[in-house]
Amino acid sequence: MSVLAPELRDFLDANRVGVLATQAESGIPRQSVVYYARAGDELLISTLAGRAKTRDVERSGWASLCVRGDAVPYPSAVFSGPAEIHTTRIGPLTAAVMQRVAGLDEPPEPQTDEALAGIGRVILRIAVDRVSAVSYIEVSA
Amino acid sequence: MSVLAPELRDFLDANRVGVLATQAESGIPRQSVVYYARAGDELLISTLAGRAKTRDVERSGWASLCVRGDAVPYPSAVFSGPAEIHTTRIGPLTAAVMQRVAGLDEPPEPQTDEALAGIGRVILRIAVDRVSAVSYIEVSA
Repeated sequence: MSVLAPELRDFLDANRVGVLATQAESGIPRQSVVYYARAGDELLISTLAGRAKTRDVERSGWASLCVRGDAVPYPSAVFSGPAEIHTTRIGPLTAAVMQRVAGLDEPPEPQTDEALAGIGRVILRIAVDRVSAVSYIEVSA
Repeated sequence: MSVLAPELRDFLDANRVGVLATQAESGIPRQSVVYYARAGDELLISTLAGRAKTRDVERSGWASLCVRGDAVPYPSAVFSGPAEIHTTRIGPLTAAVMQRVAGLDEPPEPQTDEALAGIGRVILRIAVDRVSAVSYIEVSA
């Protein structure tokens, strides 16, 4: 059974930016705003190999994403779970994120892994196994 | 000298919700959406004594707040630093946050510490000493 109720899937699909939190080497949380795409119960983020958030995930294997709507009462929820950095077969996943960044009806033509490696692009993937701090989103029992 | 450039103060004052991150007892980041008010270089959040975020701050003495604008290109920044929970002389601070929650021109009449204790209200205060992940905000040198 999916950890994401239909209302939470709809909420994720209706928004496109969230605040990623990872655990820095010092132990304290590191936050940044990212675009994301959803695939089933997984969240996909396109980032760069050298970024601190990438190293955090490689080291800790965990991330969370807090998504909120843009208007009062600011519906929101936090999606967290095991996370990994992927560098192979990431063309379609990266295209899915870029579609959301650009607001396109269809994803752009996927790039090859080699092309994405050339510009340092990786996919940060969160396998959501916990949803917390749900506010102003009606979730059916 | 202030750690907050004028453009960052203006940005904080132009928005009113952010994503708070604290360090949970397990070590991983805990996130939630909160309203805030700014006082100089400090960020004020009104929360409840029993909340997990409150216990996190009491234990770790640290918090961060990621604030983003509501429209493309989603300007954002992360404000972090030492944090404390306050339960005395919090009437005016709580009123300052409630003014922002309700969108009032003036803060409401401050409640007494006794009245706020009766409903479990505390102030979580972040003394910002670091600004990171600044995106789409022009900060003068």
